[in-house]
Amino acid sequence: MGSISYANDTASAQYPQETYLSVKLAPGTLVEKKRRASSAVSLKRQLGFLKSTGRYDAFKLKWHPSYDEPPSVWPIGTWLFWDSDIGKWIEGACYFLQTHYDAEVDQAVQELTEMIASAQHEDGYLNINYSVVEPLSRRFTNFRDMCEDYNAGHLLEGALAHQHYYKNDKLLAPMLRYMELLMKVLGPKEGQLHGYPGHPELELALLRLYERTKDTRYFEFAKYFVTERGNPKGADGRHFYDWEAERRGDDPHRRPYYYPEYNPSNWYYSASVPLTEMKAVEGHSVRPTYLLTAVADIVRLEKSSKGALHEAIERLWNDMVSNKMYVTGGIGSIAQWEGFGIPYFLPQGTDEGGCYAETCAGIGIMMMVQRVLQYELDGKYTDIMELAFYNAVLTAMSVDGKKYTYVNQLASSDTNPADRSEWFKCCCCPPNIMRTLAIIGGYIYSQPTTSEKTDTHVAVHLYIPSTLDFEAEGEKSQLTQESNWPWDGDIKFRLSSASKNVSVSLRIPKWAEGWSVDPEPPHSQVEKGYLTLPTPWLVEHPEFTLQIPMKPRVVAVHPFTTQDTISLARGPIIYCVEDYDNPWVEDHFKSLQLDPDANVEEKLVTDPTTEEEYVALSVHRGSSLLPKLNAEPSIPWKDLAKASAEGSVVEDLHFVPYYFHSNRGGRGHVRTGIRRWIR
Amino acid sequence: MGSISYANDTASAQYPQETYLSVKLAPGTLVEKKRRASSAVSLKRQLGFLKSTGRYDAFKLKWHPSYDEPPSVWPIGTWLFWDSDIGKWIEGACYFLQTHYDAEVDQAVQELTEMIASAQHEDGYLNINYSVVEPLSRRFTNFRDMCEDYNAGHLLEGALAHQHYYKNDKLLAPMLRYMELLMKVLGPKEGQLHGYPGHPELELALLRLYERTKDTRYFEFAKYFVTERGNPKGADGRHFYDWEAERRGDDPHRRPYYYPEYNPSNWYYSASVPLTEMKAVEGHSVRPTYLLTAVADIVRLEKSSKGALHEAIERLWNDMVSNKMYVTGGIGSIAQWEGFGIPYFLPQGTDEGGCYAETCAGIGIMMMVQRVLQYELDGKYTDIMELAFYNAVLTAMSVDGKKYTYVNQLASSDTNPADRSEWFKCCCCPPNIMRTLAIIGGYIYSQPTTSEKTDTHVAVHLYIPSTLDFEAEGEKSQLTQESNWPWDGDIKFRLSSASKNVSVSLRIPKWAEGWSVDPEPPHSQVEKGYLTLPTPWLVEHPEFTLQIPMKPRVVAVHPFTTQDTISLARGPIIYCVEDYDNPWVEDHFKSLQLDPDANVEEKLVTDPTTEEEYVALSVHRGSSLLPKLNAEPSIPWKDLAKASAEGSVVEDLHFVPYYFHSNRGGRGHVRTGIRRWIR
Repeated sequence: MGSISYANDTASAQYPQETYLSVKLAPGTLVEKKRRASSAVSLKRQLGFLKSTGRYDAFKLKWHPSYDEPPSVWPIGTWLFWDSDIGKWIEGACYFLQTHYDAEVDQAVQELTEMIASAQHEDGYLNINYSVVEPLSRRFTNFRDMCEDYNAGHLLEGALAHQHYYKNDKLLAPMLRYMELLMKVLGPKEGQLHGYPGHPELELALLRLYERTKDTRYFEFAKYFVTERGNPKGADGRHFYDWEAERRGDDPHRRPYYYPEYNPSNWYYSASVPLTEMKAVEGHSVRPTYLLTAVADIVRLEKSSKGALHEAIERLWNDMVSNKMYVTGGIGSIAQWEGFGIPYFLPQGTDEGGCYAETCAGIGIMMMVQRVLQYELDGKYTDIMELAFYNAVLTAMSVDGKKYTYVNQLASSDTNPADRSEWFKCCCCPPNIMRTLAIIGGYIYSQPTTSEKTDTHVAVHLYIPSTLDFEAEGEKSQLTQESNWPWDGDIKFRLSSASKNVSVSLRIPKWAEGWSVDPEPPHSQVEKGYLTLPTPWLVEHPEFTLQIPMKPRVVAVHPFTTQDTISLARGPIIYCVEDYDNPWVEDHFKSLQLDPDANVEEKLVTDPTTEEEYVALSVHRGSSLLPKLNAEPSIPWKDLAKASAEGSVVEDLHFVPYYFHSNRGGRGHVRTGIRRWIR
Repeated sequence: MGSISYANDTASAQYPQETYLSVKLAPGTLVEKKRRASSAVSLKRQLGFLKSTGRYDAFKLKWHPSYDEPPSVWPIGTWLFWDSDIGKWIEGACYFLQTHYDAEVDQAVQELTEMIASAQHEDGYLNINYSVVEPLSRRFTNFRDMCEDYNAGHLLEGALAHQHYYKNDKLLAPMLRYMELLMKVLGPKEGQLHGYPGHPELELALLRLYERTKDTRYFEFAKYFVTERGNPKGADGRHFYDWEAERRGDDPHRRPYYYPEYNPSNWYYSASVPLTEMKAVEGHSVRPTYLLTAVADIVRLEKSSKGALHEAIERLWNDMVSNKMYVTGGIGSIAQWEGFGIPYFLPQGTDEGGCYAETCAGIGIMMMVQRVLQYELDGKYTDIMELAFYNAVLTAMSVDGKKYTYVNQLASSDTNPADRSEWFKCCCCPPNIMRTLAIIGGYIYSQPTTSEKTDTHVAVHLYIPSTLDFEAEGEKSQLTQESNWPWDGDIKFRLSSASKNVSVSLRIPKWAEGWSVDPEPPHSQVEKGYLTLPTPWLVEHPEFTLQIPMKPRVVAVHPFTTQDTISLARGPIIYCVEDYDNPWVEDHFKSLQLDPDANVEEKLVTDPTTEEEYVALSVHRGSSLLPKLNAEPSIPWKDLAKASAEGSVVEDLHFVPYYFHSNRGGRGHVRTGIRRWIR
């Protein structure tokens, strides 16, 4: 494993939480409009909900009626993540304040900061649950479930954003005191608890704190969490979570709701074994993505991209992407533990066995890829980041910025019709997408370290119309991309730099059936999904165009899913059918069959109610409805084939981007993967 | 609802537990050989296991080391069903003693009887757990989980068989005393517990006890259980199970292993709502089949085949057969609660999401259908009884009678390779199949009541070579069927009766693509799956042949299962592929693809090691192996179609009857439903 060289590496640290400030999104384009809705609408509406639900005042440490409610998911009281909700809101608010001042938001952040600081105990402890609801004496007794450090991580991220905007330590100082306490309580030394966060988050925040403060103790603390996690003999020769459960006197048959099995269900926490021995992603789906975000950051800092930690990232990534990911980039099929099923268990909806694809897990994938790309420029990661962004994350916010999805099922059902909510009892996703959209510019570009010190290398990961400000040989430079991506694959680039030592890498998505650059570059070798335009050529051609032809594609899932379904895709966008455009549907499109050879028509449209612009797809007489069939319990194949072939033809089947569903009313019938029409 | 007319109806009661004595199975035929293996091998080997595991001596009420073991499925101690294991073994032993005396078996039954009688408490109570393991004071506090009455039911069935064979009351008398106690404790009156069995079984036993004793109190007690079950306000205005849990002071978060959810999980017990309001079969799969067996008996006794109870049977039957049954007739896809999943959730194995198809549930289907057929001659029930018998029940015993399956998964996996065991910790299935094979003759025929009192009507449900002795107009009569069913569909019948008033109904299976009777009968109208040959024609043609052509069929599952798989079937037999005949397999046939239009060759063979005779099927160059594919997370449809089409061809794919798998060694790779080859 590499060793960290603290002094030098910080130059290469590029956190989107800061780099987004160098990126201007082109006004009126898809992603800029999403960010604007989040800034102009979501931010204050979420503030309203923070206030009306009791979260806003929670750090006043007074009793709130919610605390009397039985936990909806025992043993997790509904208030248990309030600290993190506030942390994420502060974080997003500070990002938006950087680009658009708002007095009400400013005042709220400052008031929250004061309340948080005033809630701190003498010894630095800061947590709502153990300050108000449960006795303080019970703190630090259940790192596995009670998420003290998850909350601390989100408050810390909030504090980092706060310090960056306000240039003061009013929020960071209390958090540093809290970190001192945690570093005293947790660690490898005798007398310390050899524990680690049940829900990873503090790790990735600590690494950013290290970046900010250069205090290596934070790096070491994060590293300790990562390497100690899953140690089978970490505490008195036992797994820490089992040790701490026994210490609490837990009744082994008193199972948390999310345990399908007896204790120990340490796989739920991504802690069944140490990370370097972990063969597969399992359990709760958000946790491994947050964990691996931190791990990738450690790999970068340690320059250990050939080491065991990156091997673990790659191994778990491959398992996740090949065996446990939905066509939308969503992950997690099991609602009970909000997480992964067995390999290839990817039913589309509740009435097929489950589908979760939590918004926060999609965001976790984005964070993780962003960190990996800092040391390993590989389009296999970026392709999935883009897929998840457009389909597993953007889906989660309505066009008007007012409503959200938590679960992003691929098909609706009578039990779970497609819909959106303004708020959730456990409300991790809405502030998460808000803070992500705030810094989305930071995901578009990165500047990988080059061998030549004078060279500046700009990698373009996402084709989101924007301008990047950067320095090359001390000179202010700009790279601008103009397009109507994701609806059109023609992207105009303009490099403006006095430096003659700038190279640019462009991602060529794996789904692209072709691509060209105009004027023609000196070579067209795509390496690990990126085409690198060399400096001399760029000096000659500061304006160039990348063309990635976009046309509808028919994609299938792995046959081991046991599903014979196909979906329409175009560029990075996955499509779905929705009752709004296909009002005849009565069964959530369960009996719909689609001919994979059907001609798919496309049309750039603007929806009149939402003013959303998108490419709509449609299929004329290329789909049909399977008649009602009885298999008691089987049906002669010939009868089934005949019934399928003779299904009543649908005149026109209309598709919209999956992310756009449930924005125009309707009855909540949505489906992404459609049964293949056998004829 | 009809009212019971106790005096007359008993004439029409035909329990296979008694009628099997009128049926002689033709020696050397498939089913007779299974019964013989069970009698000659299983019976004594099971006795050996009863002895070595502590069950045999358990009614001595001494401590056994097993009682110290933590429950493998909390809160159910491994010994909790020992009473029922003994009851079932006694029952089967007495059936076999009727047809083949064995001194060792006789002596064991008598010794067990003495031990059981000696274990009875003063007040009639009889239960191992609450006499030895848990304090007696805790009895009757958990009808939901602790199965006191399930055990009582099996002991009662054992006692009925005992009395029938020994013509004494040595076992029945203690059971009657126990019933007196139960009838005092449970019931609708004030001061009684308004409870009912967590696992139905006592109901169906009580109805047979009523038949034997004509004591209507037993009928009323069974009827009370059936009608009170699921009453939402049965106990102090609450559901009895919730009331009793609260009375015990149960911690609601201390969930039994088989609960995926919080309390109350009354759906697990088929007790979520009263039966007449129950819309679907759910929860543990054995329970509803045992419950409905009793319900059907009540419908017969009450002559209420148009009433709400039969409506419930039909409603739940349709849900089970159309939505929740495997192609083998097996039911239950979820291992956690040994039961039903949501509609159409029928994965084939553990690595696809589950498959349980417990042997006892297959037996429950047979019992239930046998009872329904007493008042409603409808082949839709019989077809499933035959399907379940050959594929979901016969599968459970090895050819040599030594090994069993508990779970009958349709496809093996590395986690759960196909195999058989000599015994199980929870050992309900082995004695259950043993006692079922003992009386299998009783399932072949029935004598439905006819409108004309002098008429005798014999219905032939199963084509198992045999002779039925019956009385017609006081004359000893015989109906003989000769065939090589299920391998050959030509069945020779010979009716021998001095009466001229005998009619015979023959079941025409729904899967039959044709049928003929020779000589030609006067009409060929099949009513509800049965062809009735009228008396005058039978007088003229006492010998006739039914021909049901048998050829391999390709059957599919309902598309809503999301599976695109096909299976081979022939007659009532479902086929599978096994590594023994296809030794190249490495992946449990997961990547195998079968062309539904392939030519299927058939051959009657005798396996040299087991001497089992069966029709083997094979497909020459009609199947292939899907190449390794990566979907990250999707794959262009054209690539998948090409890969499927170009799969490497399998020269010869060999199929054996599913019930025959895991009899000849091998590596445990088995699959029933095979992916359809797209080309």
